[in-house]
Amino acid sequence: MATVPAVSDSNGPEFAFRDLIGFDIESGDGVATASVEVDERHLNPHGTVHGAVPYALIDTAMGGATMSVLPEGNWCSTVDIHVRYLSACFGGRLTATATVRRAGKRIVHLDATVTDDSGTEYAAASGVFAVVPARG
Amino acid sequence: MATVPAVSDSNGPEFAFRDLIGFDIESGDGVATASVEVDERHLNPHGTVHGAVPYALIDTAMGGATMSVLPEGNWCSTVDIHVRYLSACFGGRLTATATVRRAGKRIVHLDATVTDDSGTEYAAASGVFAVVPARG
Amino acid sequence: MATVPAVSDSNGPEFAFRDLIGFDIESGDGVATASVEVDERHLNPHGTVHGAVPYALIDTAMGGATMSVLPEGNWCSTVDIHVRYLSACFGGRLTATATVRRAGKRIVHLDATVTDDSGTEYAAASGVFAVVPARG
Amino acid sequence: MATVPAVSDSNGPEFAFRDLIGFDIESGDGVATASVEVDERHLNPHGTVHGAVPYALIDTAMGGATMSVLPEGNWCSTVDIHVRYLSACFGGRLTATATVRRAGKRIVHLDATVTDDSGTEYAAASGVFAVVPARG
Repeated sequence: MATVPAVSDSNGPEFAFRDLIGFDIESGDGVATASVEVDERHLNPHGTVHGAVPYALIDTAMGGATMSVLPEGNWCSTVDIHVRYLSACFGGRLTATATVRRAGKRIVHLDATVTDDSGTEYAAASGVFAVVPARG
Repeated sequence: MATVPAVSDSNGPEFAFRDLIGFDIESGDGVATASVEVDERHLNPHGTVHGAVPYALIDTAMGGATMSVLPEGNWCSTVDIHVRYLSACFGGRLTATATVRRAGKRIVHLDATVTDDSGTEYAAASGVFAVVPARG
Repeated sequence: MATVPAVSDSNGPEFAFRDLIGFDIESGDGVATASVEVDERHLNPHGTVHGAVPYALIDTAMGGATMSVLPEGNWCSTVDIHVRYLSACFGGRLTATATVRRAGKRIVHLDATVTDDSGTEYAAASGVFAVVPARG
Repeated sequence: MATVPAVSDSNGPEFAFRDLIGFDIESGDGVATASVEVDERHLNPHGTVHGAVPYALIDTAMGGATMSVLPEGNWCSTVDIHVRYLSACFGGRLTATATVRRAGKRIVHLDATVTDDSGTEYAAASGVFAVVPARG
């Protein structure tokens, strides 16, 4: 898997939202991960991680996994994501791992899970992405 | 609906993730909104708003709408959220409006929609929240 | 809306599963309904209607609503459906009403609700259907 | 796993909907299956299996898997199910296998997959069931 640096640099397109949340991305053949070291910026009023933080990892990792199986020049967009919260999270390093379950010509089905370094699972998700073909 | 200021102040609990994204929250009787003025921090590499931004609004507004129908002292947690993306978003003011569809003693069902000021709908979502009763 | 008879007849294609469950279908411009008079065949061991009965209505009505907005010769297939159960059902006439929320060239987003004649809502659902283009 | 006969008998409660569709149920410790031999009754007008058939297996298997982890006397009800269709199905023996992903005191999270005897996967689903405690 190719590592994408956590801070956008001049060699790739700017990815401002990644910089805002602070996550890293890696993607390979039908699989991608996005991970973040939880800090105070990610918290709800009562000290748990806001649900949009694991969600940001899931959506990004699913996009990366989808792109990894598309022909060069194609693009993708999120159709829908269903996310389930399994445990409250208070800190640590969160990693979303997204896997392509079935890649069709127009629709890609994915699964994702969000765990910390000890293996505790905080969220599980399924997603559908639409393939946007390269313009002829 | 009571307005919650965009920046956490000393009168309420710190809400760091809200400050990070920059959203405002209002909640009333079974309804809540969360809104944000999109800026460069919220963008994907190719200039669209990252899907986690409307999601953050949805999750927060659903939590607010749920809290508005619970007895004093109860709390809630997100069980699952299903979000559908209807249009790509490039900017403007995004507002998630969440509405309680059915409030049971243990489970609350909600709907949400994310629109801009012109009424264009970017996302629609359904959610299930669990009621966490006050400790006797 | 054009009524489809409850029992498959020689003028239309055989629809065996509809005959098995016993539902009626109507569809119009972006909306369709499927309804059934609940009887003993539809019940769980403890007397409630099995969740697959309202689901059968939802899936069928969503397919009808999708077909109603597609160009002649196109077809559709279900990508995913998310169904929420709001009340237990013990009998009566159940009707699923499905509505197209957004029809794209490749993806159609739908909502559905299942009610009885008194207006009680038993289930709510969202669905994504893929457009299968006519072969040139 | 204890086999439940396909036709309701006098030793257990009547399960009319199972008899209508014709499926078998087995359940063990946190896992349950429901399976059916596809025949003409299960078909759409154009010869594919209606989406409510795998759904009926999923919902039933998830209920069985949930019951298998609950204390004696407790009951459960479906909160929501999200089902994804991965391949069109034309026949064969379909089996839904449901697994408890996380069992809390009030909420049980499950996954399910529907395959035929060759291992082809037709549908995948996630579900949330609510625990209905025994009345004291």
